Amino acid sequence: MLNRTVFFISDGTGITASALGKLLEHFPSTNFTQVRMPFTDTLDKIKLAQVSILHATEANGGRPVVIMSLGDMELRNTLKQSNAYFIDLFNTFIDPLGLELDQKPLTGAGIAHSVMGTKYNDRMEAINFTLNHDDGMTNSGLEEAQVILIGVSRCGKTPTSVYLAMQFGIKAANYPLIPEDFERGALPAILHNHLDKIFGLTIKPERLHAVRNERRSGSFYASLDNCRKEIITAENLMRNAGITWADSTSRSVEELSAIIMERTRKPT
Amino acid sequence: MLNRTVFFISDGTGITASALGKLLEHFPSTNFTQVRMPFTDTLDKIKLAQVSILHATEANGGRPVVIMSLGDMELRNTLKQSNAYFIDLFNTFIDPLGLELDQKPLTGAGIAHSVMGTKYNDRMEAINFTLNHDDGMTNSGLEEAQVILIGVSRCGKTPTSVYLAMQFGIKAANYPLIPEDFERGALPAILHNHLDKIFGLTIKPERLHAVRNERRSGSFYASLDNCRKEIITAENLMRNAGITWADSTSRSVEELSAIIMERTRKPT
Repeated sequence: MLNRTVFFISDGTGITASALGKLLEHFPSTNFTQVRMPFTDTLDKIKLAQVSILHATEANGGRPVVIMSLGDMELRNTLKQSNAYFIDLFNTFIDPLGLELDQKPLTGAGIAHSVMGTKYNDRMEAINFTLNHDDGMTNSGLEEAQVILIGVSRCGKTPTSVYLAMQFGIKAANYPLIPEDFERGALPAILHNHLDKIFGLTIKPERLHAVRNERRSGSFYASLDNCRKEIITAENLMRNAGITWADSTSRSVEELSAIIMERTRKPT
Repeated sequence: MLNRTVFFISDGTGITASALGKLLEHFPSTNFTQVRMPFTDTLDKIKLAQVSILHATEANGGRPVVIMSLGDMELRNTLKQSNAYFIDLFNTFIDPLGLELDQKPLTGAGIAHSVMGTKYNDRMEAINFTLNHDDGMTNSGLEEAQVILIGVSRCGKTPTSVYLAMQFGIKAANYPLIPEDFERGALPAILHNHLDKIFGLTIKPERLHAVRNERRSGSFYASLDNCRKEIITAENLMRNAGITWADSTSRSVEELSAIIMERTRKPT
């Protein structure tokens, strides 16, 4: 296993730079240590960064990868005097895109993640909505929801709802399917008016059993047998109501959200 | 105002590609329409994308920007036969980084946002923790918190906590500072054992007044006078307890989170 340090050096939050850090997962046989350096907006801070780069090179026996987003040309050029593999978002993306668009890019610090950013208020409102409509907490305001997730308890509805709100500004409510619904053999009545925005989640019984056991070890609720029955019944309920669903067993909230966005064709 | 369409075309969730979409905010005089096309993993889907690219070109009177992440070489090359400005994450980042690391990158679909990704379970656990410790909901389990945000009601604690959990896997509790605390002139007793992980948020009175008025218009709670008094008292409490704080008035949750991560020096 090779060791490499990756620095995310930005004059703003460094969030766009770190998002590219996900691409490192294409190289599973390198062990990356990730170091974030947000708000690196003075020469002094650049010099501190250079010291860290040197230390990391010595510690790893190989030069670091530096993913950088610095609007100021002097800071940019100074940093690049270090020996590292640089991925410069300005050089690579922003400046060439400016040529394509025939526009000079803004170079102030922290442009990308300011409150002026696209849809910021929508996202904050969506988070509030989603937290207030978690786990069937209230029946009021569902007409405002853009997506309503349903599924058995602990199948991943909450983190997926939160991700939809935070990332895409989608107002996502979620409703658990519970023994009461299974006995009645129908979705909760309140949902009947909102079938067009309901999306289901399901999960493999073995996984649900493991997840529930972490919380309530040895309970009937967590038993494999009960998990299996709940899942079969929930899937039948959803099938009868004509609801699309996805299996959360081996999918991340990012993957589930992308699927939900695609299937429910919400504008992004 | 120029119009341009930006396509995010990926064989996975498209989340890394869309993160780069933030860089478009460096070009405020272009009006970008953003179109996500996740799970574009067959030739048929590539051909549909090409049709959309052609339509967008006609509609905008200019070729679109395509930010693409496709592992498969045939899909990649086919897409590039369209007339567009391509930003190819493989060509630009992954392949050159492979040369630097002397490793062949994985090219399967959706590598970056699978549940196999770094720290996925930590992030899910952090979200659960954070939602269960929102708004001083419980005093139990605070020793597990990595950050505890405090501040007056509606100053941005909840969305910031959720972002810290979702993005960085930080277990972030939050506690409102309420009239009871102001009368006592001290932080809630339960927090005294956790001073080292407390971070404060504050806000300008005018902004707080506006935010609270949206919820409870005309109330004493929302009055500018009350907002001003609460904020002064809360800042005094925090100052006396030696707590660092940041002003949320014109900062996004991304910016606040980056500041909190930096000041509390939590490992990422």
